[in-house]
Amino acid sequence: MSQSPIPSQSLPIGFRWSAVRAGIKASGKPDVALVACDGGANAAAMFTSNQVVAAPIIVGRKHLVASGGRVSAVLVNAGNANCATGQPGVDACHKSCVAVADEFGCVFDEIIPSSTGIIGVPLPLEKLLAAIPNAKRALGNMPGDAEAFATAILTTDTKLKVARAEFSVGNKTVRLFGCAKGAGMIGPQLVPHATMLVYLFTDIAASSQQLALLLKPAVEGSFNSISIDGDTSTNDTVLLLASGQSGVAAEVDAAEAFEAALHLVCRSLAHQIVDDGEGVTHVVTLEITGANSDAEAHTIARSIANSPLVKTAWSSADPNWGRLLAAAGKAGVPFDPAHLSVTIGGLPVFESGTRAAQFDEGATHEAMQAREYTIALDFGTGTGSARFITCDLTHEYVSINADYST
Amino acid sequence: MSQSPIPSQSLPIGFRWSAVRAGIKASGKPDVALVACDGGANAAAMFTSNQVVAAPIIVGRKHLVASGGRVSAVLVNAGNANCATGQPGVDACHKSCVAVADEFGCVFDEIIPSSTGIIGVPLPLEKLLAAIPNAKRALGNMPGDAEAFATAILTTDTKLKVARAEFSVGNKTVRLFGCAKGAGMIGPQLVPHATMLVYLFTDIAASSQQLALLLKPAVEGSFNSISIDGDTSTNDTVLLLASGQSGVAAEVDAAEAFEAALHLVCRSLAHQIVDDGEGVTHVVTLEITGANSDAEAHTIARSIANSPLVKTAWSSADPNWGRLLAAAGKAGVPFDPAHLSVTIGGLPVFESGTRAAQFDEGATHEAMQAREYTIALDFGTGTGSARFITCDLTHEYVSINADYST
Repeated sequence: MSQSPIPSQSLPIGFRWSAVRAGIKASGKPDVALVACDGGANAAAMFTSNQVVAAPIIVGRKHLVASGGRVSAVLVNAGNANCATGQPGVDACHKSCVAVADEFGCVFDEIIPSSTGIIGVPLPLEKLLAAIPNAKRALGNMPGDAEAFATAILTTDTKLKVARAEFSVGNKTVRLFGCAKGAGMIGPQLVPHATMLVYLFTDIAASSQQLALLLKPAVEGSFNSISIDGDTSTNDTVLLLASGQSGVAAEVDAAEAFEAALHLVCRSLAHQIVDDGEGVTHVVTLEITGANSDAEAHTIARSIANSPLVKTAWSSADPNWGRLLAAAGKAGVPFDPAHLSVTIGGLPVFESGTRAAQFDEGATHEAMQAREYTIALDFGTGTGSARFITCDLTHEYVSINADYST
Repeated sequence: MSQSPIPSQSLPIGFRWSAVRAGIKASGKPDVALVACDGGANAAAMFTSNQVVAAPIIVGRKHLVASGGRVSAVLVNAGNANCATGQPGVDACHKSCVAVADEFGCVFDEIIPSSTGIIGVPLPLEKLLAAIPNAKRALGNMPGDAEAFATAILTTDTKLKVARAEFSVGNKTVRLFGCAKGAGMIGPQLVPHATMLVYLFTDIAASSQQLALLLKPAVEGSFNSISIDGDTSTNDTVLLLASGQSGVAAEVDAAEAFEAALHLVCRSLAHQIVDDGEGVTHVVTLEITGANSDAEAHTIARSIANSPLVKTAWSSADPNWGRLLAAAGKAGVPFDPAHLSVTIGGLPVFESGTRAAQFDEGATHEAMQAREYTIALDFGTGTGSARFITCDLTHEYVSINADYST
C-alpha cells in the first residue's frame, strides 16, 4: 500500500513520472525530474513576462511552436536556473532535449525543458546528461512516482505542493493532477506562449488551442493573483498537458466541468505556494470590490501585496490600516477615499473617508493573529473586483534571502 | 557661541524658526515647528502623487493657489499625519491655519500646514492650538532656531538632515538652507502642486512661477530618485520659500547659480534621507546608462531599488547579480540581456548576456561590505540614463516596522 499523499485513483492516464539524483542540488537530494507522455500529449503553456528569461524558457517556447503544441516528455532540473548563461546556456539546454529525445525515439521539439535554482551559474550539463537514462528507467505511473517528481522540483520550498480534481462524464472519468514549486521570487506575471514551476496533467482529450483558451483565465485567477515578495522570476512556467486517454473530449459539459476542475487545482496550488512562502507566518487574502474595473482592482491589490510597510505590519498583527490606504493610494489608480470602506477579518476599520466608528483595535489585532484572514476593500464606485493572495514580510524572509557567507 | 551644526552665515535672510513641545509625539519631544517668513515669501511646492492624501496636503494646495504662491508662515506638526481623517481632519487643519494667521495678522491662505506621523488618528487640535502662541514667541533667526525646527519635524529619523549652499553675485550673497525628515515610507513620487517633508529656504528674489520651474528638475534628480521601501507616502511635501531679501534676482547668471545650489542641496538631503533609512546598513547608488530613454532607465532603477530579493542580498554583501537582472527584467521595459553589462563597485559581474569572464565573487563580496557603493548597469542600446539612490532591507527594518504590542 502506497504511503504517498497522492491517492492512486487521482492520477490521469497517459503519464509516467520519475526523479533521480544528479548532484546539481548542493543538498544531494533528487534534482532531475522527468515526465513521459506515453503516446504524446497536447500542451498549452504560459511563461514569465520578465525581460530576462532563462534558456529553458527560450527553448521551450520554440519547441511548442515547432511541434504544434505536441509534447512527448518534460525534463526538469532543480538547483540551477540556467538563466543569464548566454548562448552556452541555450546550447546546453538544447543538448539535454536532444538526449531525452534520443531515449524516447522522438524529435527534440517534443521535449519541454525546465530549470529552477540559482541564476547566472553555468548549467552542469554533464551531470544532467548522465542522469537522463536513469530517470527514464525510473519512470512509473504510481502515486509514489508522481510524488517523487513533485518533490524533486522543489528548491527552498518546505512542503510538497500537489492538487487534484476529477469528474465523470457518463461512465468515463477525467482526471487532473497538478504539482508546483516556488517559495521565493514569487510575484508571477505570466503571459501566454512563469521560478514558479507548475505542471498540470490531465487525460481529457483537447487540442493545444482549446487548452490555451482554458489555461489563461485559470492562471489569471490563481498564479497571476498571488505574490510573496513581488519579484517576478525569470523562469516561471505553467505547463498543461492533456493525454486524451480518458476518452472524454473537452466539449460542452465536459469542457465546463474541466474548466472548473482546472480553476480548482490552479487556485489550490497558488494558495499552497503562498502558504509555503519564505518566512511566511500569515496568509492574507485581499478582496477588492467596487473598483472601476477588474484591472484597476488587481493593480491596487498588487500594490498592497507588495508594500513592505503593510507586510511588516501583518507580521506583528498590527491593525495599522493607514499603511493599507497608503499602499492602495500609490498604485496609480484614481479613487476617492471618501467612498472607501475597509474590513480586516470582517471587522470594520475604515468607512467614508475616516476611521470606522466601530473600529476596535484590540479585536482587530486578535483577528490578525490568525494564520489566515481576509482584508476587504470596497472602493464604492464601480463593479471591478479582484481576489489576491499574499503574505507577511518577516525576519525569517530576510534571513533566508540574506544567507550568504564566503 | 552656537553649538549648532548649522553655521550662522548659511541662513537665508527673511526667515525665523522655532519648535515647541505640544504633547503630540508620545516621546514628549518637540513636535510643533513654525517658520515665519517676515515680509512674506514666494513659494513653489510639490506634493505626493498618492491617491490618499493627508488633510494638510489638501489645504496647502488650496492655499498656494488662493494666495498666488505667497506664504507668511509654515506650521508643522510631527507625530500625527492628519491623514485619512475625513472632513474633520480638513476642518482641524483649517482651524490651525486660522490660528496662525491670527497670530501674524495675515490671511489664512498665506499659512502652509504640514503633518507627519501616524495615519488615521484624529489630529489633537487642542494641543496644536495651545502650542501656536508659544511657537510664535520662540521664533528666532539663529542657527539654534533653525536646528530646533529641523529637529522637531523628525519622527523615526535618527539623524538631523540639513544642507546648505551659497553663492555671490557682485557683493551680494544668496543663501539656500534646506532641512528634511523621512526614514520610512520613502519612495517619493512627487508631482508639482510629496511622509517625506522637505523645506528649502532662500533669500533670492524669484516669483512663484520661477521657483516652480526651478524646483521640478531639482526634485526629479533628487527626492524622486531615491527609495528606502518604495512606499510612497500620503504626506510627502517639498516646499521652496524665497524671501527675496538677498536683493539678488533669479535672472541670468544668478538663476543658473541658484539652480546649481538647489540641485546640490536637494541631492544632499535626498542622500541623507536614504543614509538614515530605517535599518539601513548599505547605501547603493544605481547608475543606469545605455537605456532607450531616461524614463525607461528610471523605471528599471526603481524596479531594482524596490526588489526585496535584491535588497536582502545587499544586506549580506551577497554578489547575487542574478537577482539584479531579474529585478531589471520585471520592470516592464523591453531590453536584450545580450547587450547588458553590469559592474558592482566597479568590478565586472555580467557582460554580453552572461557572467563576466573576470567575475571575482570574493572581491565583489568585499566591495559590497562598504557602507556605500555603486552598481552600474549599461543596457548598451540608447542614451537614456538615471541615477537612483537606495538601500538594503535588513532585520532591523522588519523590527522597526513590525514593532507592535497591544
